[in-house]
Amino acid sequence: MNKKIQIFDSTLRDGAQGQGISFSLEDKLKILTCLDGFGVDFVEAGNPGSNPKDLEFFTRASRLYLKSKLVSFGSTKRKEIKPEDDDNLKALLTANTEYIAIFGKSWDMHATEILRVSLAENLDMIERTISYLCSLGKKIIFDAEHFFDGYKNNPDYAIAALKAAEKAGAVTLCLCETNGGCFPHEIAEIVASVKKQVTLPIGIHCHNDSDCAVANTMAAVSAGASHVQGTFIGIGERCGNANLAVLIANLQLKQNYACVPAESLPLLKETAQYIAQTANVALPNSMPYVGGSAFAHKGGMHVDGVAKIPASFEHIEPEKVGNERNFLLSEVSGRAVLYSKMRAIEPTLEKTDSVVQKMTDKVKELEHIGYQFEAANASFELLVLKELRYFTPYFEIIDFKIISSHFANEESNSSFSKASALIKVKVGHEFEITADEGHGPVNAIDKALRKALEKFYPVLSQMRLVDYKVRIVGGNDNTAATTRVLIESTDGKANWTTVGASKDIINASMLALLDSLEYMLQISGAENFN
Amino acid sequence: MNKKIQIFDSTLRDGAQGQGISFSLEDKLKILTCLDGFGVDFVEAGNPGSNPKDLEFFTRASRLYLKSKLVSFGSTKRKEIKPEDDDNLKALLTANTEYIAIFGKSWDMHATEILRVSLAENLDMIERTISYLCSLGKKIIFDAEHFFDGYKNNPDYAIAALKAAEKAGAVTLCLCETNGGCFPHEIAEIVASVKKQVTLPIGIHCHNDSDCAVANTMAAVSAGASHVQGTFIGIGERCGNANLAVLIANLQLKQNYACVPAESLPLLKETAQYIAQTANVALPNSMPYVGGSAFAHKGGMHVDGVAKIPASFEHIEPEKVGNERNFLLSEVSGRAVLYSKMRAIEPTLEKTDSVVQKMTDKVKELEHIGYQFEAANASFELLVLKELRYFTPYFEIIDFKIISSHFANEESNSSFSKASALIKVKVGHEFEITADEGHGPVNAIDKALRKALEKFYPVLSQMRLVDYKVRIVGGNDNTAATTRVLIESTDGKANWTTVGASKDIINASMLALLDSLEYMLQISGAENFN
Repeated sequence: MNKKIQIFDSTLRDGAQGQGISFSLEDKLKILTCLDGFGVDFVEAGNPGSNPKDLEFFTRASRLYLKSKLVSFGSTKRKEIKPEDDDNLKALLTANTEYIAIFGKSWDMHATEILRVSLAENLDMIERTISYLCSLGKKIIFDAEHFFDGYKNNPDYAIAALKAAEKAGAVTLCLCETNGGCFPHEIAEIVASVKKQVTLPIGIHCHNDSDCAVANTMAAVSAGASHVQGTFIGIGERCGNANLAVLIANLQLKQNYACVPAESLPLLKETAQYIAQTANVALPNSMPYVGGSAFAHKGGMHVDGVAKIPASFEHIEPEKVGNERNFLLSEVSGRAVLYSKMRAIEPTLEKTDSVVQKMTDKVKELEHIGYQFEAANASFELLVLKELRYFTPYFEIIDFKIISSHFANEESNSSFSKASALIKVKVGHEFEITADEGHGPVNAIDKALRKALEKFYPVLSQMRLVDYKVRIVGGNDNTAATTRVLIESTDGKANWTTVGASKDIINASMLALLDSLEYMLQISGAENFN
Repeated sequence: MNKKIQIFDSTLRDGAQGQGISFSLEDKLKILTCLDGFGVDFVEAGNPGSNPKDLEFFTRASRLYLKSKLVSFGSTKRKEIKPEDDDNLKALLTANTEYIAIFGKSWDMHATEILRVSLAENLDMIERTISYLCSLGKKIIFDAEHFFDGYKNNPDYAIAALKAAEKAGAVTLCLCETNGGCFPHEIAEIVASVKKQVTLPIGIHCHNDSDCAVANTMAAVSAGASHVQGTFIGIGERCGNANLAVLIANLQLKQNYACVPAESLPLLKETAQYIAQTANVALPNSMPYVGGSAFAHKGGMHVDGVAKIPASFEHIEPEKVGNERNFLLSEVSGRAVLYSKMRAIEPTLEKTDSVVQKMTDKVKELEHIGYQFEAANASFELLVLKELRYFTPYFEIIDFKIISSHFANEESNSSFSKASALIKVKVGHEFEITADEGHGPVNAIDKALRKALEKFYPVLSQMRLVDYKVRIVGGNDNTAATTRVLIESTDGKANWTTVGASKDIINASMLALLDSLEYMLQISGAENFN
């Protein structure tokens, strides 16, 4: 039986301290439900005292049936105040959770210089806070803030802080590497030493300021820690927290620990993506295990090796974490990748068929003017279908015009605007001219175009945009540089991404939009009236 | 005297294998010059045989005076071919570099299953390739591909591969953790064992598939490696390579090794930014030492602590790596941060002044409709100046119109388009109406606006756009969701970033553009005619 490691996710608390992160109440409930479904042991979700949104969150969360333990988070009481009179603790208790994470100082300098209390007072604050909460039936995880820096500076005092919490009735002593500056050998040594001096289970909480958060956490686990804190995709204060998605895979798939139910691992990528999307951050392509490039092969030799034996250039099978192998289209990868992608569409294709060379030339030419197909599989697929002459467009755009008027709004520095679009579309022998208005030119033309096309293809009403990204490529000089637009769309079942590039942002958007509509029609199997 | 660690940068070779990376010839020369100026020992730059662009690169690079050693990169010769007849080696020699990195197989499985040669043949290929190149006066760094996986599988054979290279005259044996799946304790153990069996200096080359590339490299250095390979900002195949920017800081600032000249360290962030910009990738905010958030404090307690004693929440002083401390504006950080930022502009401001509360409310309100000031300091500064009534706009926009016409181009799936803009601007008592056309609506309005304003403020001709980013925020439903535009501008000396948010992309772009122009006028000290 593999040793159990408790997984404690702090996306909703420490993750919310990451730059650019701001969770709505609904976001927090979504992430809680997602983490619970994935099977982490604890979900830490902030302090109801810090703002009214958090209080409502705990109220709503208490109505959910959760297997994960929901944890509220607060500091030790202030000095010279009874725990029962401390406003912060009162607020914390309104969260009404069985488990509470209490953070306290274990670095002597922090007690005397930041909290400005004596060393004895700080120990007393830890002990009395935890004793009080335990007397109310709470289970306390003690987060020993700055434990490692504290231990380096004054090991006896750092241990005394842990012992105060242990004596008061805490259930777990979590050693926090708050400033993120330690290295694995230091962590291993200090955890091993602590392990000999206390009896409670040891937890570890690392930050990534030296790019060692994952390695530090693993060093702590090897030295005996059995409770791991982090955030699912590594977001958090400064350089972020230890990345739980990576840690769970490292520990469970490669080191034989038990972190989450075995059936959850194939959901690892999907879970990371969902959390990133809810947090409104892009999941970095390079993120181990779950990133879009984690099993993407570009160098010619790598592509060749993986095609022969996957283990030759992959440390694990991508399916184990719900990811997939991907051969990238680029000048470095060459024709072999292009051919394998084309053959997935047309299995009878030979490598020597002239169409393979034609596609290679076409892709290079489009990349040269700003396209990039690595992320836009749907546009690539349409291109192949067109080149193989398997695809007839469902419609043609004859022309379109946009008129956009903007007036200063004297009340603010914003302005009032109205965008109108008119478009002429041809399907078969029929012409359709429609117009619509919208919030901005892209929205206006999108609406006018759908109005024209849905007459012929009602299935398009099921399609909606998931994401719209704009990037300036090539010359960095001015607003006339090439614009690359990526559009992600969904029909509620599948998602696909298309690309358009042009010096004109409206054109680039339109090209990506047209591919997206064509792709939807293609996969829906709609009858082609063109 | 601190122990010297050789730094070997492979941004131009392994970095080019990262998803989405494509260097032009000019990009490669820029990065080479930048790395040379920073002071890395080696710059690896690919194989002139792989494409004509690389051959021209080596020709042009040979005309530069470089302190760094330029390194070309290629594989061992094919079996049954004399080294002097091997096309790959011939191509490699056209690079005409003193140092060559030769990679060869040290994992028995790779020799027999991927290269499909016998174990003895592979050793012969290593030895004869290196002997031949040494006979031509070349200095060879032997990259033992998959060394650690190979060693785990068959330690004797992995060592035999190193010995073949050593016997043939290589100068350095670099152990490559090609698949990125190892952990620090394994690396430490294997490097220590290798160290006892060979006499040449040991190098280390790690990938980040377990999020341990930096920790693995440091473990190798502790075990005796003295040559470190990586890429400056960590880009590379799959999850990337060991991040040299982080490693140099970790090793030199925190472990007392000598990697680069001491005066280079304060250029660390700038160098990382320059390379990211040239590679056309965003430098992740969370990147240790060099990222925009690496020393950014958001949680209220952290902000308070750092204000008292920086070391309380920072593992090193940001100035040492050319970065800076940053207090983030957000609902988590609260009024204290806002106040400190406002006081930087107006030192006499008291925390209790009503304007502080007014700004807090204003920022919350703007954030609610899609603004974000974390990255847009110039817009924030203008907002403060306006609130303090220290700022009078230099101009007013009365109204503007855009007409954008698009016609299908029958030759391709692209279309022909023309965007025209007309704008009415007021400066003082004068009105100016101008028009211009451009590649797309934003470019057209930018041109028309400048035409109107440069009449009054010629200094604006010195301003140009550096970057233009668009992000959809809030509702992910459709093209009508809120658009946030960030514009980075420069006057050739300073760069500044402004933000605009609106449902209409043209409006959002215009708001960011207006702030950018106002900011330029503000810092230039131009006389205000409005």
